[in-house]
Amino acid sequence: MFSENQWIKIKAPATVANMVCGFDILGFAVNSPYDEMEMRWMTRAENEPSITIINIDNYNLPTDPEKNVAGAALLAFLEEYEEKQNSSSSSKIKFEVKINKLIKPGSGVGSSAASAAGAVVGANYLVGNIFSKDDLVRFAMNGEKLASGVKHADNIAPCIFGGVTLVRSIFPLEIIALPSPTLHVTIVHPQIEVRTSDARSILRQQVLLKDAIKQWGNIAGLVAGLMKSDYDLIGRSLEDVIIEPVRSILIPGFDALKLACKQAGALGGGISGSGPSIFMLSKTEEIAKAVEKEMHELYAGMNLPHHTYVTTINQKGVEIVADFI
Amino acid sequence: MFSENQWIKIKAPATVANMVCGFDILGFAVNSPYDEMEMRWMTRAENEPSITIINIDNYNLPTDPEKNVAGAALLAFLEEYEEKQNSSSSSKIKFEVKINKLIKPGSGVGSSAASAAGAVVGANYLVGNIFSKDDLVRFAMNGEKLASGVKHADNIAPCIFGGVTLVRSIFPLEIIALPSPTLHVTIVHPQIEVRTSDARSILRQQVLLKDAIKQWGNIAGLVAGLMKSDYDLIGRSLEDVIIEPVRSILIPGFDALKLACKQAGALGGGISGSGPSIFMLSKTEEIAKAVEKEMHELYAGMNLPHHTYVTTINQKGVEIVADFI
Repeated sequence: MFSENQWIKIKAPATVANMVCGFDILGFAVNSPYDEMEMRWMTRAENEPSITIINIDNYNLPTDPEKNVAGAALLAFLEEYEEKQNSSSSSKIKFEVKINKLIKPGSGVGSSAASAAGAVVGANYLVGNIFSKDDLVRFAMNGEKLASGVKHADNIAPCIFGGVTLVRSIFPLEIIALPSPTLHVTIVHPQIEVRTSDARSILRQQVLLKDAIKQWGNIAGLVAGLMKSDYDLIGRSLEDVIIEPVRSILIPGFDALKLACKQAGALGGGISGSGPSIFMLSKTEEIAKAVEKEMHELYAGMNLPHHTYVTTINQKGVEIVADFI
Repeated sequence: MFSENQWIKIKAPATVANMVCGFDILGFAVNSPYDEMEMRWMTRAENEPSITIINIDNYNLPTDPEKNVAGAALLAFLEEYEEKQNSSSSSKIKFEVKINKLIKPGSGVGSSAASAAGAVVGANYLVGNIFSKDDLVRFAMNGEKLASGVKHADNIAPCIFGGVTLVRSIFPLEIIALPSPTLHVTIVHPQIEVRTSDARSILRQQVLLKDAIKQWGNIAGLVAGLMKSDYDLIGRSLEDVIIEPVRSILIPGFDALKLACKQAGALGGGISGSGPSIFMLSKTEEIAKAVEKEMHELYAGMNLPHHTYVTTINQKGVEIVADFI
């Protein structure tokens, strides 16, 4: 175990779920933005709370562990940790977590996943890395359930594993790390609210078989393109005939923005998770910056406040760091 | 161009379409069974037919080129060939094709695709290989349209390319060759009739989104498993929650056979194309033979006549051969 009372620092990256055609199964981590967290463990006396959460940002998120995504993830972690210790007599532990949320909640780039994933990776480090990454994903999914009502792993998996991940199955949980070539990512976050639950409820429960066939052709093409480092194939496969046509109506200027970005050279892209952020993948940083310019111009023209990020795929996932960069 | 009047010999392999979870997009070629064909070209006089088909098997397939799958494919070939020559004055050519069908029509392992693909690969060889493999797939799909009413490429593509192929898109046509580890294939053909058009008509046109998500998780897993040579991942991904539950009712003993084969060590498998043949993939020849034994026992117990094949994935596709092996 790591020393009692000693703080560690944690970087938890933002993530892009779905990756256009891979609804609920694909996702990737990015190098920017990321949440900063600090954590320590201490011996817990009877009647003491097992988790203390301190927010050092201004988002006013709940600090009650059962209502906080990091808290919900840590409660699942501690339950299994204590079972594993199987020593009711031995002293129990508690965690203190400070969260500096730099990924804006509700932006659609895995803000809740970063808190949940960061917390359980940090906790695992503190207790001596006794859990596998798959275990950590399982714990962190409790945070997602609290945030969106659904135990999904398409942000949690890339946040913990880094890179591009495939969630082949949720029950039983199976995560596959997919190799990928260097990809530059441009993200724009238009400052509007899209609730994950709304974005989910507008989806139809039935889809046309012929559309599903197109979709799985693109998913297979995307996986093959990533593994072959075939940029053109990646670009052609970044097409979603099922989810995007429905969800994009919630995002102002979506079609025009996508078109402008592709004309600026982006391989392709679409809604990040359930939105409202939009991401684009490019082969070079130069193109990724040209794409950012298009995003700025379009949303400035619409008088829509927005943030942009030009970044790359993060291959490491949540990191324990000495100091924040 | 190859010498006028000289016969060439062609081997056109059987193919397994769908590959369980990849309905309409995945397929692979096998080394056995295969069709044998012979072809030659000659100068064509005005009013002479452009294609002559001679069946040297006992299946009594039509010899009118417009009603024969090899003929329909060759008509498409010749039309584009003549456009490409763009020389109305120059002499025109005709093809003679002898077909020895060793892949039983209606068995579900790409019998019609082998005729169509074999014919166009042979024709291309005779005229000096002026068309790409993608072109040849396009021509051969006319044979599939004649056979099943649908221009599908999931047998044609692996028959021409060899190995495992992904048809990412039909319009525009895009075929991606997928690398695969050594896989042993066991096929059983129960002697019952399942018409492709019937097998297609019983499918529902709408599928549940949650089932589609499971399916595309498996497709992504299968592509990743093939490219990573991860046999266990291939096995886990060979699951079909959409097509197999509907189509398998047309095949006697399907569930019991699949279970017995997996208990004998097969990685997994399912209906080949639209059936009635069933295929299983195994890691070793020994297991593939044990799987064959299970197939024999089950269908012998049901007094159902059947053929089996133990083979491997064919990596070459249609071949021009000096002599048949």
